[in-house]
Amino acid sequence: MAKALPLSPLAQPLPRLEPVAGVRLGAVAAQIRYKDRTDLMMMEFEPGTTAAGVFTRSKCPAAPIDWSRAALAQGTARALVVNSGNANVFTGRAGVHATQISAAAAARVVHCAATEVFLASTGVIGEPLDAERISDAMPALYDKLSPDGWEDAARAIMTTDTFPKAATRKVEIAGETVTIQGIAKGSGMIAPDMATMLGFVVTDAAISHDVLQALLHMGTDRSFNAITVDSDTSTSDMVLVFATGQTGTPPITSLADPQLTAFREAFDSLLLELALMVVRDGEGASKLFSVKVNGAVSDESAKKIALAIGNSPLVKTAIAGEDANWGRIVMAVGKSGEPANRDTLSVAIGNTWIARMGTVIEGYDEAPVIAHMKGREIEIQIDLGLANGHAQIWSCDLTHGYIDINGSYRS
Amino acid sequence: MAKALPLSPLAQPLPRLEPVAGVRLGAVAAQIRYKDRTDLMMMEFEPGTTAAGVFTRSKCPAAPIDWSRAALAQGTARALVVNSGNANVFTGRAGVHATQISAAAAARVVHCAATEVFLASTGVIGEPLDAERISDAMPALYDKLSPDGWEDAARAIMTTDTFPKAATRKVEIAGETVTIQGIAKGSGMIAPDMATMLGFVVTDAAISHDVLQALLHMGTDRSFNAITVDSDTSTSDMVLVFATGQTGTPPITSLADPQLTAFREAFDSLLLELALMVVRDGEGASKLFSVKVNGAVSDESAKKIALAIGNSPLVKTAIAGEDANWGRIVMAVGKSGEPANRDTLSVAIGNTWIARMGTVIEGYDEAPVIAHMKGREIEIQIDLGLANGHAQIWSCDLTHGYIDINGSYRS
Repeated sequence: MAKALPLSPLAQPLPRLEPVAGVRLGAVAAQIRYKDRTDLMMMEFEPGTTAAGVFTRSKCPAAPIDWSRAALAQGTARALVVNSGNANVFTGRAGVHATQISAAAAARVVHCAATEVFLASTGVIGEPLDAERISDAMPALYDKLSPDGWEDAARAIMTTDTFPKAATRKVEIAGETVTIQGIAKGSGMIAPDMATMLGFVVTDAAISHDVLQALLHMGTDRSFNAITVDSDTSTSDMVLVFATGQTGTPPITSLADPQLTAFREAFDSLLLELALMVVRDGEGASKLFSVKVNGAVSDESAKKIALAIGNSPLVKTAIAGEDANWGRIVMAVGKSGEPANRDTLSVAIGNTWIARMGTVIEGYDEAPVIAHMKGREIEIQIDLGLANGHAQIWSCDLTHGYIDINGSYRS
Repeated sequence: MAKALPLSPLAQPLPRLEPVAGVRLGAVAAQIRYKDRTDLMMMEFEPGTTAAGVFTRSKCPAAPIDWSRAALAQGTARALVVNSGNANVFTGRAGVHATQISAAAAARVVHCAATEVFLASTGVIGEPLDAERISDAMPALYDKLSPDGWEDAARAIMTTDTFPKAATRKVEIAGETVTIQGIAKGSGMIAPDMATMLGFVVTDAAISHDVLQALLHMGTDRSFNAITVDSDTSTSDMVLVFATGQTGTPPITSLADPQLTAFREAFDSLLLELALMVVRDGEGASKLFSVKVNGAVSDESAKKIALAIGNSPLVKTAIAGEDANWGRIVMAVGKSGEPANRDTLSVAIGNTWIARMGTVIEGYDEAPVIAHMKGREIEIQIDLGLANGHAQIWSCDLTHGYIDINGSYRS
């Protein structure tokens, strides 16, 4: 299905991906749903690798979500197995069984416990996943693993994505260069029967599970949890991070460790880069927009207001139409249910303030606003004038392309 | 703008509208924004008329919302003035002043207190409303008032609506026939700069303010507050009901009054009929769909789940595409954040159960589901299998028409 979609106009090229010490990875075609394309990806980690994860808040999560959440309890990882084509969602006991078979197959080739294997699936919902195809393909997949398999891995996890997504950073810890590198997929929260947001990041730094988990929570809050394509939340969303500790840098076991500062900055920016790629590949997206909210009663309130704007179909269609329709932005603030006062509210588009303290600025210069709306990246700012809460989120416009992709007749 | 839009395929003809004792109404062209069409509507009520109202929950409400909410404190009404073309939203002190001028102008012709005048406005946001046009037009408008002005009134409050909306009921109280009749407008929560959901209902029964308010709260909960077009909430939504008491039936002053039973049933069904007309005129709508949720932990939870389904862009585009995509329904249940258990969840479309207790029913007959999806009115049912909470909501599909209407370039 993905093949039929034209490349997103917001697509970004793959960066140069180098090996990360302690991980070998690769992909094969296991014929799970697609024909003649890779749909099964694996990473093998050196013993001692720590893991952290964040998962969908869906109340109807996929079976692999349950599996990986449980695996995370140990805090370590030896393998990650991801298939595309079938999400293993709403598959009952058969779905649970499929996760057991998949993890056992990986554990056999890696020689580890099944509970050290993380699983993720993305694709069609409600159809049984034939895990035999995964276990059958496992020996060949294991033979293909190499430190250079990053691009293959990034491609194998795609569904309706129009471009593969990866990002990389180098940063120093105690005078040693460490690498942080990750891949992601996602384009709609659930695409024509298939899609989901997945992110997998590996670093060769040594970081304890607890610290890694805290970093991931904070980092996703401002990246993967601050983006929206269509407000719909997949049953299978997952971001995992693995630290192999192979650089020989001293293990970081405290969030307060000053060695962590540069790492954290690089890690956060890598998560945001990956997350924004998902928005850039939003179904039908022609423009990326950010919503920055200041002056809210709390950061949490600011984020809710920002998401109300980012998810509003009327704001999203206005962006598609290059229409600086700030009335719809005010509407979205009002509907968020969060504390707001129309008489202290200010609105800017592309750094031009259009309304201040609840009234339109008479004779404001519309020219730079119109020019800004014609660009690929749009910036909306709100100041609520109440307190100091702030947040930023990213979204994409709502176009005919979205309807084409999601409203087409199923054969 | 409304003129350019084709008639909704779900449009319904106006019913035969008869006078309701105690109200005279009419409309004129006050040139507020539109040229050559009626845009100012007025109702005058006999002294002793009680009033009730429900208003938008927007935190950035229009100035007329504040005005009418305050007017409601008295519980009685002598007049209602509604303009289309300008919503008087985000207009600061000038907006407050405009409501004072409008109410004063109506009070002068009716010979009542300004606080007995209710106001509503719908249209463009953020542009000052020239209330002089309203006060200038008031004498001519007052001269036109007649018991037969219902259709004119229904048309004057339209903005992007493609058809006028009215409903009527007759019911007996103490052996006397009373009438309940109402008009409504709405098509998107905020349309191309303009729109809003308004409903105005008049009965000639005698019902105390308290009882009327309670009836309206309960009735809108299952009608105007159980519909969605695009999840966006206008700054100006309002439903008002007026009871003139002109039939001479004994005043009803208690919700427990057995005389109220038939009235309440008729009132509820009238509110629902009006509310569904708004969905039928949803921007770009080609199909109306209902979502019935049973088995939730509470009625409130059931309604949140139903609205999560009804607002999901992926469910709405699937309906547009006549795609019985129950996976997206499961996704929407999961994202609602309400208690749900995928292993007790069942899903039906058009009375055919597709999944039971968390798994697709193997070999279920897809033929009646496919046939149902081709119709104009689609029914989705969810059973959460948890407790007895239930709710029903109505929505419309998301089509290219919605993008055309809302994403078109502003000149």
